[in-house]
Amino acid sequence: MRAAVFHGAGDIRVEQVPDPRIEEPTDAVVRITHAAICGSDLWPYRGFNPWQAGWRIGHEWLGVVEDVGTAVDTVRRGDWVLAPFSFSDGTCEFCRRGLQSSCVQAGFWGTTRDGGQGEAIRVPMAAGTLVPIPKDVDRDEALLTKMLLLTDVMATGHHAAVSAGVRAGGTVAVVGDGAVGLCGVLAAQRLGAERIIAVGHHADRLALAQRFGATDLVSGTDAEAIAQVQDLTSGGAASVMECVGHKTSMDVAFAIARAGGTVGFVGQPHGSEVVNIRRMYRDNVALRGGIAPVRAYIPELMIDVLAGTLDPSPVLDQTVSLSDVSAGYVAMDTRQALKVLVRM
Amino acid sequence: MRAAVFHGAGDIRVEQVPDPRIEEPTDAVVRITHAAICGSDLWPYRGFNPWQAGWRIGHEWLGVVEDVGTAVDTVRRGDWVLAPFSFSDGTCEFCRRGLQSSCVQAGFWGTTRDGGQGEAIRVPMAAGTLVPIPKDVDRDEALLTKMLLLTDVMATGHHAAVSAGVRAGGTVAVVGDGAVGLCGVLAAQRLGAERIIAVGHHADRLALAQRFGATDLVSGTDAEAIAQVQDLTSGGAASVMECVGHKTSMDVAFAIARAGGTVGFVGQPHGSEVVNIRRMYRDNVALRGGIAPVRAYIPELMIDVLAGTLDPSPVLDQTVSLSDVSAGYVAMDTRQALKVLVRM
Repeated sequence: MRAAVFHGAGDIRVEQVPDPRIEEPTDAVVRITHAAICGSDLWPYRGFNPWQAGWRIGHEWLGVVEDVGTAVDTVRRGDWVLAPFSFSDGTCEFCRRGLQSSCVQAGFWGTTRDGGQGEAIRVPMAAGTLVPIPKDVDRDEALLTKMLLLTDVMATGHHAAVSAGVRAGGTVAVVGDGAVGLCGVLAAQRLGAERIIAVGHHADRLALAQRFGATDLVSGTDAEAIAQVQDLTSGGAASVMECVGHKTSMDVAFAIARAGGTVGFVGQPHGSEVVNIRRMYRDNVALRGGIAPVRAYIPELMIDVLAGTLDPSPVLDQTVSLSDVSAGYVAMDTRQALKVLVRM
Repeated sequence: MRAAVFHGAGDIRVEQVPDPRIEEPTDAVVRITHAAICGSDLWPYRGFNPWQAGWRIGHEWLGVVEDVGTAVDTVRRGDWVLAPFSFSDGTCEFCRRGLQSSCVQAGFWGTTRDGGQGEAIRVPMAAGTLVPIPKDVDRDEALLTKMLLLTDVMATGHHAAVSAGVRAGGTVAVVGDGAVGLCGVLAAQRLGAERIIAVGHHADRLALAQRFGATDLVSGTDAEAIAQVQDLTSGGAASVMECVGHKTSMDVAFAIARAGGTVGFVGQPHGSEVVNIRRMYRDNVALRGGIAPVRAYIPELMIDVLAGTLDPSPVLDQTVSLSDVSAGYVAMDTRQALKVLVRM
């Protein structure tokens, strides 16, 4: 089959790789129809993560089950399925508690395993990992595109909201106008936040934030943004969603959190090891979050997608074929695209 | 009157200072009968905090109201009262929400104001700050000693437990066997934790932790302690109380937190700006806490002290007169005393 392969910073190629096959009785093989490029794929693409040439890439995907091992009875050949960005056994303490991201057998797509940006994928622990789409969606391209976003970005935005303690009637500030931040706005709106302040740097993305439910849009330098949010909220937001992962965005998040409030963070930390512990201490500002337990969130989010009340698909503003996946990386790296859909 | 005055690292003297008097109609003046030396007083004493010669010190105290301003109607002359380590107006948003430590008018005892280690103290915003002891305790030395500990250390230990999400039947690890950590053990026991693992370095203090309800005692190097707690809990404690404030104790706390768990921290941060954000991210370990909103906790803790079900007083293992307060600092600095009571 063909799949995207990392060869170095700025160098993603589509190449022939071995076809996946059932290796364990708990495996499934899925033919991928839709995939996406994630902001976190840009970390290795830009050379910030220590990746090796030859590694596979991509972790947002959905498709059709092609084969299952003898121990898999939750899905069968021909089912439409999606999966979180990590696999999990579904049975350990953490899976049972809804923290599948810390599954004792958890692992991620890509690197030395099949990646999501390819024609097919071997899925370990398929019963714990795969979620069938409970509807005949064969030709429903719009629905499949929405579903694809539940594999990571929408669930991650939701996790930021949950971690930040967003609740009905509350005030929340969302730091970052990338796809995760925008999905975070949508998640906060879905959870009933009354005031949603989107903090970003791009007019077009902030316009989408508004469409997703943001009540206030804030941009400018970090200092200006902090001052604006402080002014809008008279002392900060009780919930702040940090959706970037940089030290600067984390600093902004702490600076706009209300005393007693919570910063929910989901951005993969890059340079944010040094937190504003004095602000946390002085004003009891909590820091919660991390990698999203996507598997726990997919069912409830899927219900809303099927009901037509949740649609994160506007974050996908460009489509490429698998052959052109490299162009998709360029488009996201240069911010010509917000998020790229890859059609096989 | 006489009061303790800071003159430099290792140099605390008792000197004549101006008598406090009512300056605002919202003030009270309290004659102090009991005070204590806090672990956090040792920061300036050891030269770690930028303090100026001539500043006053001490923030744990109780006594008898000597005078009140015309606007104070919650306490009157002759009442026994105690106060948190900070004063607060009792009316702002944060006071109403039980986060009096972030009161918009909050301030601390000592430095350029009267300190707690002295014969009397001017109390701003007395109606918001002072808590009367609802009983004639004139000669009940044992009860007064217990009450004194509600002004900071017991309430701070309680805040660590609350911040760490300690709940009935849960497992908690307490990092630090100082007075705060020991009161944290007591707080966790009071909240119904089933398993309480005390992590410390001193056999006598760990013995007191056991008396306070610790079910397991862990000591040794940090690496050994981490391994022991991991072993005892098969993967870490859901709640971890960080009761020191050093980088090393914070690192231990993150290393023994269970995936999805919470580190509740109350130690004044000294070098702990660099947190283990990767552990937090990878396993959704939250960090909550900070300076304790003591004013919010005093009433419920006082009820238990009055009922005889809460007694933190064993952490006070040495008593000095005000004249000898300097000897009290030496005893705590050299760990000959766990916590020192100062009797006027």
